[in-house]
Amino acid sequence: MARWQPDAPGRLAAAALDLFEEHGYENTTVIEIAERAGLTKSTFFRYFPDKREVLFGESALTGLLVDAIAAAPPDAEPLEAVAHALDVLGQEVFTEGRREFSARRQAVLDANPELAEREARKRIGLVDSMIEALERRGVAGRTARVAGKLGALAWEIAHDEWILGGEGEEFGALVRQVLAEVRVVSGAC
Amino acid sequence: MARWQPDAPGRLAAAALDLFEEHGYENTTVIEIAERAGLTKSTFFRYFPDKREVLFGESALTGLLVDAIAAAPPDAEPLEAVAHALDVLGQEVFTEGRREFSARRQAVLDANPELAEREARKRIGLVDSMIEALERRGVAGRTARVAGKLGALAWEIAHDEWILGGEGEEFGALVRQVLAEVRVVSGAC
Repeated sequence: MARWQPDAPGRLAAAALDLFEEHGYENTTVIEIAERAGLTKSTFFRYFPDKREVLFGESALTGLLVDAIAAAPPDAEPLEAVAHALDVLGQEVFTEGRREFSARRQAVLDANPELAEREARKRIGLVDSMIEALERRGVAGRTARVAGKLGALAWEIAHDEWILGGEGEEFGALVRQVLAEVRVVSGAC
Repeated sequence: MARWQPDAPGRLAAAALDLFEEHGYENTTVIEIAERAGLTKSTFFRYFPDKREVLFGESALTGLLVDAIAAAPPDAEPLEAVAHALDVLGQEVFTEGRREFSARRQAVLDANPELAEREARKRIGLVDSMIEALERRGVAGRTARVAGKLGALAWEIAHDEWILGGEGEEFGALVRQVLAEVRVVSGAC
């Protein structure tokens, strides 16, 4: 019963996404998600507190971003440390093989306010984590807040473009393009 | 019964904020909010669909921002049009007399995930409205998205600093300071 299941959270998320697309988020139950994944209800609840959480597994993302910001060269500027973390995100998470899943997930979030709000809260938590990671590098408060939120801005726009784009447009490259646009739009040069 | 009440939404929001602070958001009912405001339950529901909405009146903000972006001089750069709209916001909404209410409201939102998520959704809607207003000025897609989200970044940081700050720190001035920090952090100069 309580055996470890290889990638159970990923299988549950994939099954949930299928069912949300087929029957709608409101009309899908935890039992149906577990069955579709070939797992039990109790396995579901070992990984997620409720149906709403099944598409959100933020702890891994947070650790990845925080570690990458900490690991940036000591003399890296704050925004460079953030951009480095987003590069890692592109290499580890938002890979070519993940694009279709991400696009389908985003469509389900856009169609369900309850999930869209959950995503908004997740993003706020990730930005706060990035800001704290910058502060641990000795970056001053307002500068850390601006750099962290610029990272979020680049992430959001790059992610929107990445899920729409054709093959070959990498997430990290799109982040760099958006940050270049920030320099132009902020009227700095 | 159905007579017009002067500033009924404002009185309901003020009463709700008092009660949320005194008894907690979860423990406050619509009837109690209406009674505290000296109004009826049916008046409450004329303005808000449920308790969760009473601290959110976004339609006025959206119109104000969209109109201000449209009214910026034709040759204004995208981010300048956005900064102009945030100046108007500081003059019309985030005034000195509003600061204490805004600070108390923010504390209640921070303490209640359900309200924090509603606020996050409200902000996403406002940013989307600003982006659309920029596109109507002929600003290209990605540039409009970057400028609109830079406006949101400046708004969020300026608002956090404004509710904490002493007298004399105006919202619009803080927005300009944050945008100056964006130029520095984006490494443009």
